[in-house]
Amino acid sequence: MTEDKPANLQRTGRSRGRAGGGAAARRAKRSSNVVQQLTYIKRQIPVYEVLSDEGLQKIETNAETVLAETGIDFREDAESLAMWKAAGADVQGERVRFPKGLLPELLKTAPKQFTQHARNPARSVEIGGNNTVFAPVYGPPFVRDLEGGRRYATIEDFRNFVKLAYMAPAMHHSGGTVCEPVDVPVPTRHLDMVYSHIRYSDKPFMGSVTAPERADDSIAMAKLVFGNEFVEQNCVLINLINANSPMIFDGTMLGALKSYARAGQACVVSPFILAGAMSPVSVAGTLTQVLAEVMAGAAFTQLCRPGAPVVFGTFASSMSMQSGAPTFGTPEPALVLYGAAQLARRLNLPFRSGGSLCGSKLPDAQAAHESSNTLWPTLLAGVNFALHSAGWLEGGLVSSYEKFIIDCDQLGIMQQMAAGIDLSENGLALETIQEIGNLPPEESRHHLGTAHTQANFETAFYRSSVADNNSFEQWSSEGGKDTAIKANEIFRKQLASYQAPDLDPAVDEALKSFMTLRTKELPDG
Amino acid sequence: MTEDKPANLQRTGRSRGRAGGGAAARRAKRSSNVVQQLTYIKRQIPVYEVLSDEGLQKIETNAETVLAETGIDFREDAESLAMWKAAGADVQGERVRFPKGLLPELLKTAPKQFTQHARNPARSVEIGGNNTVFAPVYGPPFVRDLEGGRRYATIEDFRNFVKLAYMAPAMHHSGGTVCEPVDVPVPTRHLDMVYSHIRYSDKPFMGSVTAPERADDSIAMAKLVFGNEFVEQNCVLINLINANSPMIFDGTMLGALKSYARAGQACVVSPFILAGAMSPVSVAGTLTQVLAEVMAGAAFTQLCRPGAPVVFGTFASSMSMQSGAPTFGTPEPALVLYGAAQLARRLNLPFRSGGSLCGSKLPDAQAAHESSNTLWPTLLAGVNFALHSAGWLEGGLVSSYEKFIIDCDQLGIMQQMAAGIDLSENGLALETIQEIGNLPPEESRHHLGTAHTQANFETAFYRSSVADNNSFEQWSSEGGKDTAIKANEIFRKQLASYQAPDLDPAVDEALKSFMTLRTKELPDG
Repeated sequence: MTEDKPANLQRTGRSRGRAGGGAAARRAKRSSNVVQQLTYIKRQIPVYEVLSDEGLQKIETNAETVLAETGIDFREDAESLAMWKAAGADVQGERVRFPKGLLPELLKTAPKQFTQHARNPARSVEIGGNNTVFAPVYGPPFVRDLEGGRRYATIEDFRNFVKLAYMAPAMHHSGGTVCEPVDVPVPTRHLDMVYSHIRYSDKPFMGSVTAPERADDSIAMAKLVFGNEFVEQNCVLINLINANSPMIFDGTMLGALKSYARAGQACVVSPFILAGAMSPVSVAGTLTQVLAEVMAGAAFTQLCRPGAPVVFGTFASSMSMQSGAPTFGTPEPALVLYGAAQLARRLNLPFRSGGSLCGSKLPDAQAAHESSNTLWPTLLAGVNFALHSAGWLEGGLVSSYEKFIIDCDQLGIMQQMAAGIDLSENGLALETIQEIGNLPPEESRHHLGTAHTQANFETAFYRSSVADNNSFEQWSSEGGKDTAIKANEIFRKQLASYQAPDLDPAVDEALKSFMTLRTKELPDG
Repeated sequence: MTEDKPANLQRTGRSRGRAGGGAAARRAKRSSNVVQQLTYIKRQIPVYEVLSDEGLQKIETNAETVLAETGIDFREDAESLAMWKAAGADVQGERVRFPKGLLPELLKTAPKQFTQHARNPARSVEIGGNNTVFAPVYGPPFVRDLEGGRRYATIEDFRNFVKLAYMAPAMHHSGGTVCEPVDVPVPTRHLDMVYSHIRYSDKPFMGSVTAPERADDSIAMAKLVFGNEFVEQNCVLINLINANSPMIFDGTMLGALKSYARAGQACVVSPFILAGAMSPVSVAGTLTQVLAEVMAGAAFTQLCRPGAPVVFGTFASSMSMQSGAPTFGTPEPALVLYGAAQLARRLNLPFRSGGSLCGSKLPDAQAAHESSNTLWPTLLAGVNFALHSAGWLEGGLVSSYEKFIIDCDQLGIMQQMAAGIDLSENGLALETIQEIGNLPPEESRHHLGTAHTQANFETAFYRSSVADNNSFEQWSSEGGKDTAIKANEIFRKQLASYQAPDLDPAVDEALKSFMTLRTKELPDG
């Protein structure tokens, strides 16, 4: 991975740098009006760790035992079995067992941190280290808003969520399947999704993983944007590779993984765990299995291409005793998250987990509490790539417009929290404490009018875009709206004011031609 | 403070121990049906710390400078000034300046941890160390529920909140002014409040602080319950002493503080801070002032009675730029909370802060997010006494019935979170991982039916009493209720099924006689 800028990005950069009049000035004005973006989070606060070294070692030892004695299935992919055999693993049928030490050794070539480039260089993100990148919800077949209720998602919904993510300051990433556009035929759906991310946003995005050829299409489209050589040598796509837990990787995911890893693009190797079903019902047992699965999958990316960026992923939920449904916002998945983050750091791998998960059907108090109960661990555990950071509703079945807005506000809170405490002289404010404390008794004491307050007030406190802090009387006179109603007004206003980022017309044309070509080639396209 | 049991508590204990038939058996059955209580939290997880030693030292040095050079006003209380003078402080008018080292030296007699006894010994709490005690909302003049909307609180509401707190498993404390019963005359209101805590709950509670004689009445009533000698030597009341920030203690609070400290009862010395008004607008500046104020107030309790239990308190909110209203759930108060917890630990004092604070007018997503954004820091910072843990709405103006229920559910989550990760052989679950991983390819792999899952399922995951985890279809068919509606149903059901804990009729009679006597003595009573 080099840090060279691709040719077309340099062009974009130059034209913006020169902005002085006419179109350039309008563009500059427009972008400053519409998108006041924050860069990805560079955490200034420590990580929170729940497990001691001794506890971590127990889990690691058990994971190594599982990998050596029980092994992981690599199914429907003979090539992967041959690769493992050549690497020194014990392959019996589709079962691969890993001699102790093999996987940690293979993982040494994986980068501890990498850049995912965006077509707007200012939106590129660092994944790993002390950085946190928020990305939207991934996967729901339904959408919901106050007016339309719950309904199947369409490509228009997809574009809307891309636009909302583009406009959200603390949303650092455009994500992937922000909802599943079921009105578009399956064989070409990935083309429309990738194109929408490129056309309606300039933030980094994700590629398709539902078939190896769709991964290849995603890479091909990225090359039209970034240039062949740049994509060969840099990460421009990050991609979600789920293990088929417990302890299976299947052909579809292995195919996509191979495509992306060989192209030098990032794979998030992520067990999708409903604890008690796809893993043991206990936190430590789940962590053990997750570690074994991720080590096998992540090491496999290094067999495909040493140095390919790979992320230690974990998605874990608890389960309802009554219905078997996944439950969110409970303590156990939070503990899994904290523990997995520690395990990832010990492997020197970036970590993906968390988000704003919930089981609620509505953007109500349940949704908010459950989301916060995932988002706080996301920040404090030191998650590097946080999928599902906004919009997730109903266990991931629904992308909610209102919740997207509410969640993005919370992401801003987390981002400011991550900045920690300013201990500069201005932050310490000794002089103003003494000034007010020295007022004679007959003078009323308050800090509202001090020079220090005046100088710092604008930036002192996070300003929520959603919360109502007016008096009861004023709030009542304005209709007594709850958060969901306020969020509805905000997302409608945002979509109405949306302006697309510039895209080189030649690139746009090339993308459209590619899509037309592929639509003809693909069955039932 | 001794650990002796008072005579009446021993009696209660014995009669329960003997429960075999008749009334005792009914009582045992009833209490096991109604109140499945959790003891206070003994945290098994580490505290989260945002400040380095170097940062803490900067704040401590500045606080010492403020205390020595600027000083703190002790107003409307000549006795306190004389006491400070005798202790070696520099007293000019009502301004007290503290030579460096004086306050830390005085604070050495304050206990690092103490027991607050409840009339039911099983409900006594440990305040300090690795323990966290949740207590209800304190102070609102209004209540709110779905049917009645927002209205002035009555003594019936007060009793209702005491009952709900009594029935909430993760609510460890009955609190104090759970709402302000405005239908009861002010001069005797404290009697009704203290009596309600004793009569309708058996959890520990708080005394009145609105006048020194009301503090004395609270102590007198506690003596009727616990016995004179026991109260002399043990803490049975915890009491909220607010500093009048910036840097003033007033006569009312000093009077109450003296009464309680001299009686060996616990004072929570707690600046009430709207940052930017009562303290500098910056986090580090607020921490400096809070530390100075608490050190002065807490050390004063030790002048009153060395060894009296005292808690380092902090209440901080941010402020709306638009309206000047307090705002909650923002990052800055969370950072103040984390920092203040560290400062308290360095003074070897128990710490009070946090809760489920919010500015929302409704128990909606805003209320939930803001509450979570205070409650997570409450748990992870290591708060020992968490007032306002349930029911707080609208910046503390309203005690909300529905929010009380929703918050209590979250307290249960925090309590389970605090237990950390079970690393026993059963928790690690190596065998079951291997058992499932070794299944032949033709068998479907899942953990639902394993012996490990069966053995652990009942206790594996926190079970929310509020969250809906049913399918969309089932939830819809049951009326598509949001969290507030569900919480409304729960609190109505709880109040309908409430059964008062036993109270020795002689004690009850003595309390009533005392109240009758005091009502005659007090003006306008």
